Amino acid sequence: MKDINELLFLFRPDSAEEESIRKITDFIFEKILSYCRDNNIDAEPVLVGSVAKGTNLKDGDIDVFVRFDRKYARAKMEKWGLSIGHIVLRDGKEKYAEHPYVTGFMNEKKVDIVPCYRMDQGEKKLSSVDRTPLHTEYVKSKLNLEGKDEVRKLKLFMKYIGVYGADARISGFSGYICELLIINMGDFHRTIEAFAAMRGKLVIGDPENTDSFDSPAIVIDPTDKTRNAAAAISVENLSRMKFCSRLYLNGRLPEYNQYNGQRKDTKDRGTNLSIFRIKKPDIMDDILYPQVMRFKNAIWEIMERNDLRPVSWEVCVKDHIDVVIESENKAVPALKIHQGPPVDEPSSLDFYNKWMNMEISRGPYILGDRIYVDLIRQQKSIDDVVREGLKNVNIGKNIDDQKEAMEIFDPYDTGKDSCALDLFLSKFIFRAHPP
Amino acid sequence: MKDINELLFLFRPDSAEEESIRKITDFIFEKILSYCRDNNIDAEPVLVGSVAKGTNLKDGDIDVFVRFDRKYARAKMEKWGLSIGHIVLRDGKEKYAEHPYVTGFMNEKKVDIVPCYRMDQGEKKLSSVDRTPLHTEYVKSKLNLEGKDEVRKLKLFMKYIGVYGADARISGFSGYICELLIINMGDFHRTIEAFAAMRGKLVIGDPENTDSFDSPAIVIDPTDKTRNAAAAISVENLSRMKFCSRLYLNGRLPEYNQYNGQRKDTKDRGTNLSIFRIKKPDIMDDILYPQVMRFKNAIWEIMERNDLRPVSWEVCVKDHIDVVIESENKAVPALKIHQGPPVDEPSSLDFYNKWMNMEISRGPYILGDRIYVDLIRQQKSIDDVVREGLKNVNIGKNIDDQKEAMEIFDPYDTGKDSCALDLFLSKFIFRAHPP
Repeated sequence: MKDINELLFLFRPDSAEEESIRKITDFIFEKILSYCRDNNIDAEPVLVGSVAKGTNLKDGDIDVFVRFDRKYARAKMEKWGLSIGHIVLRDGKEKYAEHPYVTGFMNEKKVDIVPCYRMDQGEKKLSSVDRTPLHTEYVKSKLNLEGKDEVRKLKLFMKYIGVYGADARISGFSGYICELLIINMGDFHRTIEAFAAMRGKLVIGDPENTDSFDSPAIVIDPTDKTRNAAAAISVENLSRMKFCSRLYLNGRLPEYNQYNGQRKDTKDRGTNLSIFRIKKPDIMDDILYPQVMRFKNAIWEIMERNDLRPVSWEVCVKDHIDVVIESENKAVPALKIHQGPPVDEPSSLDFYNKWMNMEISRGPYILGDRIYVDLIRQQKSIDDVVREGLKNVNIGKNIDDQKEAMEIFDPYDTGKDSCALDLFLSKFIFRAHPP
Repeated sequence: MKDINELLFLFRPDSAEEESIRKITDFIFEKILSYCRDNNIDAEPVLVGSVAKGTNLKDGDIDVFVRFDRKYARAKMEKWGLSIGHIVLRDGKEKYAEHPYVTGFMNEKKVDIVPCYRMDQGEKKLSSVDRTPLHTEYVKSKLNLEGKDEVRKLKLFMKYIGVYGADARISGFSGYICELLIINMGDFHRTIEAFAAMRGKLVIGDPENTDSFDSPAIVIDPTDKTRNAAAAISVENLSRMKFCSRLYLNGRLPEYNQYNGQRKDTKDRGTNLSIFRIKKPDIMDDILYPQVMRFKNAIWEIMERNDLRPVSWEVCVKDHIDVVIESENKAVPALKIHQGPPVDEPSSLDFYNKWMNMEISRGPYILGDRIYVDLIRQQKSIDDVVREGLKNVNIGKNIDDQKEAMEIFDPYDTGKDSCALDLFLSKFIFRAHPP
């Protein structure tokens, strides 16, 4: 990879961007404060996220929370939150996380206006976003200017190898985890050394707190000792981080373009490639992705059950939801060896009686201590098998109604492109994320 | 199946055959006795086997042992044994079991003349054939005329379902085991009932003797409590016997011709069929069959290792040794997913360094906590793969030199026939043995 300090130089916000952010936040704060004053609402704006903590990369989002007093009912607070959002962001769109919130652009910067309740450290949170301002305060109190740049380097490294991002799509490291890592390890280099030397889980925190968690990565949230801030990290991304840290220290982490050079045509692979495409509903990634994975898993299991022998997969969500599955077989094999009960079981006689009158290929016969028959199946195509199988599976409340209109195609036979195919062809130690 | 009493009527030796056997044995005894008298040898002829015990079926062999005093050295006794054999059987051929012996025909009946040592019950045997006369005496002392016919029924039943014969080819029930079963159970019907109700192993004998054996079937030899007379019986044949006993009691054991009706063309099966044929050496079945099975196992393992996905097999020895193997694939699949070490192992970096410079299809990549690469293999045929693989395997001292000249063919493409194919196509609860 490029030298990490060179990357920092390229992707650290410059003073013009910092000035622009300052202007935007001043404007937003003014708007919110005056709205609250005019409407006699006990609430105030708080700048949160990486911009507030000074760990932001170039072109990062601005997150402003509106923190309401706990005396307000949730419905009321959410209503006010949306009103404020729309006043601040003229062309803002409503989205839904823990509460509904408004997102939009201001001077070409993405801005989120999110309502929450006031919460002091140790106080019971009313919703999970209430914790965010506490994270901001904690990190600000622990990081000096150099520390902030060390966080930026770690984020860039993680982006480069494709493990940055705690959302359901990536299952990787959040910005907050990067900050906690630097606070704990001291700087970027020592963090990388720690990952390179790590065996098994990532564990940070007192054993009395960490012992209660079973995830691949456990990092106790300093603002809430009962919370594992690293719960989203998959074992795969932890492994990728460990391995790429070792490659980095050995000077062997390849350039991004080397990764691109890895692409190979699957036609050489002698396998079959199918893309399953459905329409993408307009919902948040965190709600969509678990359903996309359920969609993928459902297809995989149907193919496995029908001896189509799936060997690998990729998923991509852009204009559509595309699942690509590579399989050894293009159609269900005709032969099915059907194992009956052990001969010692009385049910073996029922098995015999049943199959003696059925259309079979061979048997009933005995092998070892069991009875078997060989069956001839209809050689159904992947298309038929998967469509048929999905009828009986609910793949998620927001996408289940798209099953009927699912498109299934071979990217080579049809010449059709798919971002899932690109991901599939580029499978490498790190993923397709330019820094 | 046919009524068992009808089978007994058809396959019990008639009085003409009994008369002929008597004449033959009288003649043989006379010849042996006069040879021993003339040469001053302390030995005598003993009629053994099913003819001696009166449990013989139509056209059975006549086994005559020549029992020598234990004072003679083995070499001397074997030399005399062969001389006597050749005097009795003009066109006799020498064969080799525990000792060399002579086999031939007399009045169209097969006759074996086998030398052994005298041995009383409990006395240490000098070779395993020494025990045979003791078996004969024991069975004669325990079975009356009705009992002998019950043994014949059991033998016919076992022949019908293909589990009769203790040699390496069948791994089934010997004539002696049939006799011990009738002696223990009382008659044919009660024996069948015992098998129909049996769970797990067949065990006959005192626990103090049976407990020391671990075979699927344990029947303590009454003439030698340290011997399991049923050691040859495979779990498969025991299962077949149990299951067919149940079918028989339910009146559902099919006629032999129904079994023939089972034949189906494998072309429907959508699989690949290969026959591996080598020359058959002129040696005894008991020496040949373990080598044939080793030959079959070697091919199976080579095919499995190369992902040819073998699914079933049959073996047949007639003019040649033919092994038929059914497989899902006709050639080695191009794709090989190659699993590397866990990322936590330092060797994962070696794996990466090695494969980064090799011709691969995809990767190295991380899945879960391991590193992988996808490899492209040459799509070799079954023929190439098996020939190559067998080079490094010794398939048995009598057949290993036949590997080079091995013929491999698809019976459908070539139209060539094989008894292994017949067996394969007829796979059923019981085997291809007309009673």
